[in-house]
Amino acid sequence: MAQIDLNSDLGESFGPWPMGDDAAMLAIVTSANIACGFHAGDPAGILRTLREAAVRGVAVGAHIGYRDLAGFGRRNMAVGYDDLFAETIFQIGALQGLAKAAGTRVSYVKPHGALYNTIAHDAAQASAVIAGVLAVDPALPLMALAGAPVVARARDAGLQVICEAFADRGYLPDGRLVQRGTPGATIHDPALIAARMLRLAREGVIEAIDGQDIRLEAQSICVHGDNPAAVAIARQLREDLVAGGIALRAVTG
Amino acid sequence: MAQIDLNSDLGESFGPWPMGDDAAMLAIVTSANIACGFHAGDPAGILRTLREAAVRGVAVGAHIGYRDLAGFGRRNMAVGYDDLFAETIFQIGALQGLAKAAGTRVSYVKPHGALYNTIAHDAAQASAVIAGVLAVDPALPLMALAGAPVVARARDAGLQVICEAFADRGYLPDGRLVQRGTPGATIHDPALIAARMLRLAREGVIEAIDGQDIRLEAQSICVHGDNPAAVAIARQLREDLVAGGIALRAVTG
Amino acid sequence: MAQIDLNSDLGESFGPWPMGDDAAMLAIVTSANIACGFHAGDPAGILRTLREAAVRGVAVGAHIGYRDLAGFGRRNMAVGYDDLFAETIFQIGALQGLAKAAGTRVSYVKPHGALYNTIAHDAAQASAVIAGVLAVDPALPLMALAGAPVVARARDAGLQVICEAFADRGYLPDGRLVQRGTPGATIHDPALIAARMLRLAREGVIEAIDGQDIRLEAQSICVHGDNPAAVAIARQLREDLVAGGIALRAVTG
Amino acid sequence: MAQIDLNSDLGESFGPWPMGDDAAMLAIVTSANIACGFHAGDPAGILRTLREAAVRGVAVGAHIGYRDLAGFGRRNMAVGYDDLFAETIFQIGALQGLAKAAGTRVSYVKPHGALYNTIAHDAAQASAVIAGVLAVDPALPLMALAGAPVVARARDAGLQVICEAFADRGYLPDGRLVQRGTPGATIHDPALIAARMLRLAREGVIEAIDGQDIRLEAQSICVHGDNPAAVAIARQLREDLVAGGIALRAVTG
Repeated sequence: MAQIDLNSDLGESFGPWPMGDDAAMLAIVTSANIACGFHAGDPAGILRTLREAAVRGVAVGAHIGYRDLAGFGRRNMAVGYDDLFAETIFQIGALQGLAKAAGTRVSYVKPHGALYNTIAHDAAQASAVIAGVLAVDPALPLMALAGAPVVARARDAGLQVICEAFADRGYLPDGRLVQRGTPGATIHDPALIAARMLRLAREGVIEAIDGQDIRLEAQSICVHGDNPAAVAIARQLREDLVAGGIALRAVTG
Repeated sequence: MAQIDLNSDLGESFGPWPMGDDAAMLAIVTSANIACGFHAGDPAGILRTLREAAVRGVAVGAHIGYRDLAGFGRRNMAVGYDDLFAETIFQIGALQGLAKAAGTRVSYVKPHGALYNTIAHDAAQASAVIAGVLAVDPALPLMALAGAPVVARARDAGLQVICEAFADRGYLPDGRLVQRGTPGATIHDPALIAARMLRLAREGVIEAIDGQDIRLEAQSICVHGDNPAAVAIARQLREDLVAGGIALRAVTG
Repeated sequence: MAQIDLNSDLGESFGPWPMGDDAAMLAIVTSANIACGFHAGDPAGILRTLREAAVRGVAVGAHIGYRDLAGFGRRNMAVGYDDLFAETIFQIGALQGLAKAAGTRVSYVKPHGALYNTIAHDAAQASAVIAGVLAVDPALPLMALAGAPVVARARDAGLQVICEAFADRGYLPDGRLVQRGTPGATIHDPALIAARMLRLAREGVIEAIDGQDIRLEAQSICVHGDNPAAVAIARQLREDLVAGGIALRAVTG
Repeated sequence: MAQIDLNSDLGESFGPWPMGDDAAMLAIVTSANIACGFHAGDPAGILRTLREAAVRGVAVGAHIGYRDLAGFGRRNMAVGYDDLFAETIFQIGALQGLAKAAGTRVSYVKPHGALYNTIAHDAAQASAVIAGVLAVDPALPLMALAGAPVVARARDAGLQVICEAFADRGYLPDGRLVQRGTPGATIHDPALIAARMLRLAREGVIEAIDGQDIRLEAQSICVHGDNPAAVAIARQLREDLVAGGIALRAVTG
C-alpha cells in the first residue's frame, strides 16, 4: 500500500500575534514543522503547539530559520558558516527541550523560507545546516526540496533525507518549481491538487507545466494552513488521498 | 579532604561585542555558567566557549535569563508563569544542543541577574523555573543563593540544589547578602576574600558584617571575570584554596 | 457645544503578523495612538497606518512602550531613568520621521500597556518619560489616565496633559479604575457604554461602581479595536456621541 | 585653502557591551556617523555619544543599517523596498529626536556595513534609501563611496552627496576599492596613509594599486576607531593633515 506524509508549518505565532490555525492543521497533517524562535515562535506558544502535536500523534520537525523575526525568515541573508552552523544547533536543541517537556520529540529538521530556498542550491549554507544537524543527532533526517542539489549533499554527508513535493505548485520539466510570479507557479483547484498528489503518491510521477510526466521522489507533501481556504484545501487533499487508498504516515516515528 | 566548586559567568559576548576573558576564566573555575542567548550570548560565541570548557574539563551550567538583551537580564521583569516555564526549557534545550556539538553536556542550571535575584525569594517565578528544569531533566541541579527560600522550594520539588556563596560579598547575620550600595556590600582585598572562602570551604562558616560567625551551606563559590582585576582576584583565590588543601571540583560531572 | 476626542491603539502589526483593523478604526476615532516599534509595529506597517491617518485627518500620537516585543509591552520592567528617558525620545523621534514622510505629524504622546500603568503612579519612571517628551518638544501633550498622579506631575513639569477615560471600564469612587479581574471592571453593554460616555462628555461626571456620581476630567475617551466586537462598540459609541450633540475632535491639531 | 572632513563610526555600543573609544575619536574627527539602533546602539548610549559630539562641535550623521544586531549589519540582506524605505526614515527620525535632546542635529546620512556596500551598486536598495532620506528631509546629504554608481543616483534624485575616501584602503585604477582579502586592500603604514590623504585633499588625486594616479572626488575621509592602533592612526592623520595646511571641517554644519 502506497503511503505518504503530509507536512505543514506550525507554531508560527509570536507573543500577542497569532498565526495560522494549528489545531485545525494538526487534525490534517502527519508531520508538523514547528518554528524555533528565530523567524517565528515564542517558547510558550511553541510549547502549546508541541503539546497538541503530541496528543494528536503528529510527528514534529524543527523548522529552523534565519534570525530575522521582522522579515519572518523570508529574506535572503548572507550568514557565515560558523553562525549558521551554531544557529542550526541552537534552534534544534531549543525545540528538543520543549518537545521533551511536551511529551514528544523532534524527529526531523526542515529549514524555513529563505533558508530553505538558499540551501536547496547553495553549497556553503547547505553544508553549515547539514553539519549542524549531524552535530546534534546524525539520525535526524533533513526534509528538503525533492530534486534539489541539497538532497545529494545531505545524503553524501550521511543524513537521511525526506524529499517533499508542494501540493499547490507547478513543476518545470527538470523537476524544479515554477518560479512564483510566473504563470503556472501556483495551483488553486482543490480537485486538481488532489489528483496530482494522488498520482505522485501512487506512481511517483507528476505532470510538469509543459504537459510532460516527470518522476519525482517525494516521501512528503507540503500543505499550507495560513488561511481558512488553505486549511480547506489541505483537508480535502487528506480526504482524497485516504479515499484513494494512500496511507498517511510520518516518515519518522 | 574538603572540596568546593568555583563558578563564573561566561559566554556573554554577543555578535561583534566581546565580554570578559573566557579563556582566562576557564583556566580558573571548575564550573562555567554559560549564557543561553536571552540576556547574552549568540550561538557561535556560546559554542566557542563550550568547546573551550570541554577541552578544559570545566563543568557547564545553563545560565538562563530574562529575554532582555538590551538590559543584559539585569532588570526585573514581570514574566508570567507560562512564558517563564517555556523560556527556561527553551534556553536549557538550546544549550544542551550546543553542548553536545561541543562534546560536553549541561550539568546544572543557574539563573542570571534579575531572574536569579527574583526567584531567590519570589515563589511564582521560582516555581516556573523549577518546573522548567524538571520538565527538561529532573536530574539537573539548580545553582542558587545559599540560604534563600528558593533552595527549599527547589528541593521540595525534587531538584538537587547547589548552594553558592559569593567570594566578594558581605553577609548579614541572617545569611543574606549585604545589599549593593550599602557599606560592606563588596569586599575588595584579595587576601581577605581568600581567607574567608578558605574558612567557608573548611568549616562551612563565614563572618557576617557584624563580626558574628554564621553557618552557610555552600558547595560552590561564585567569582567574577568581567575585568582583568576580577580575573586576578579569581586566580589568586583558586591558588589560595589549593594551597590551603581544598580540592577544587565541580559538584556535577 | 461639548466636544471630546476618541482615541485607540493602532499600528500594532509586526512583520508578517497583523493586529487589529486599523482602517476600520481610523474611520471611527479622532486620535490614533501609533506603536513606535518597541512593543509593536515595524517601520513599514507603521508608515501604512500613518498614511491612512493622514488621509482621514486623524491626529497621531506616539504610543511609546517598553522594549519588550515578545511581551507586547504588557509586562512591568524595571527600566532605569537614563534608558527610559532615551527610549522615550528614540520612539517619538522615529515616529516623527515616519509621520513627516506620511504627510502628518506627531501631536501627542501616550505610553502603552505596562509603561502607561506604571507611570500613572510611579514617580521615577514618570519623570523619565516626562523629561523625554520635554526634550523632544515641550509642546507635545502627554495623554494620561484621568485622575492619576502622573497628571499633576506632567503639568508641574510644564507639559500639557490630555486626560482620558476608558469607555468600557468601571470606576472606583475615588476615580481609579476597578482592577481587572474584579466584578465591574469591564462594561460590555454598548448602550450603557454610550450613555456613560455621553454623560461624561456633557457633564464631566461618571457613575462609580458604588452608584455614586464622581467628577472626572477627561478630554479623550479610549476605545479598543482589537476584535470585531470591539470595533462595533467603538462605532456605536461614535454614533451615539454624535447623535447626542457631542463634537468629536482631537485635542491637538 | 584646501579642506576636508574626517568621519568615523561611533555610538556602536549596545546595552552592557562597549565598542570603540568614542571620546577619543570625537577629539579627532569632524563628523561622527552615529548608529541608530538597528545594527548597533541603544538609545541611552547613542544619547551619550551625541552629547559629547555636541560639546565637541562634531557634525552628526545618521549611520543607518540593516535590522541585524547579531550580525552588526555586516551581512547582506534582501530587504524589500517598502521595508528599507521605512527603516531608513525610522532610523533617521530616531536619531533626530535624540540629537535634538543632546543639543545638536543630524546633518547627513551614511549607511553602514552591508547596506553601504549594497547601495553603492544596487539600484533597488539605493532607491529605497534615497527616497527615505528625501522623505525625511531633502536637504540631508548622503555620504557615499566616491566613484560608486549611488553617487549619481542620489544626485539625480535631488540629494546632495558627500563623497568619501577610505584612509587605509587601496584603490583600483577605475576608482573602486581593492577587495578585502586581496593584496594591497589595506594600508597599514601611518606615514603612507597620511601622505596619500594629504595629496588627495590637496590635488584630488590618489595613487592606485598599479602605480597610476587617479582622480577621486572626496569631501570626506573615513577613519576607524575600533582599536587603539586605529585611533592612533586617525590621530596621526589628523595632525599630518593640519600640519600640511589642510583645514579639517565637516561638510555640513
